Amino acid sequence: MTTYFHSSADRARKPLLPGIVTRTFWGEKMLLSLVDLDAQAAIPLHSHPHEQVGMALLGELDLTIAGETRHVIPGDIYIVPGGVEHGLTVGDAPAQVIEAFSPVREEYKY
Amino acid sequence: MTTYFHSSADRARKPLLPGIVTRTFWGEKMLLSLVDLDAQAAIPLHSHPHEQVGMALLGELDLTIAGETRHVIPGDIYIVPGGVEHGLTVGDAPAQVIEAFSPVREEYKY
Repeated sequence: MTTYFHSSADRARKPLLPGIVTRTFWGEKMLLSLVDLDAQAAIPLHSHPHEQVGMALLGELDLTIAGETRHVIPGDIYIVPGGVEHGLTVGDAPAQVIEAFSPVREEYKY
Repeated sequence: MTTYFHSSADRARKPLLPGIVTRTFWGEKMLLSLVDLDAQAAIPLHSHPHEQVGMALLGELDLTIAGETRHVIPGDIYIVPGGVEHGLTVGDAPAQVIEAFSPVREEYKY
């Protein structure tokens, strides 16, 4: 991306998994991912070499990192080191999280 | 930080500038900064070698990057490459932004 300013409202959504879409924005070192999740959507346990930091913005979810599961509410922060297994299940209302990855997840560009 | 889960509500605030405080969380490659800004607070033009990506969550502000000023509202995204001059002025209501820096801004740890 060659510009400094973006509107998430104007950005097309990229499907990730059933009931889960993202809007991504990136520089050279980081990719920002604004993820919208339907109620009860789930991301199976997985890992990637990229470090991931995020904050819940809307809704509630059960987030598992390295075998530890926590109930996450808006304002909660999570840090997933590269290579560490993680996944989540959304509660009974839609959720939104914002995350950053470093290095850039090339497969999340569109 | 050695844990995966954090509550921003429970995190002490670190003063940055008059009317501006942050709560930070970090891994090895990125530092996440949740910044609260009083109405009409300002961050003078400055630069740092760290790449910075962010999203406005609350309020409105005038953000300048590399000499270009835009009015930013919640949901707007900004990407500041390392070494590029930037600064902002908050509007007539308090604002909140979430930002990530890479590499970690060591002076933002506390």
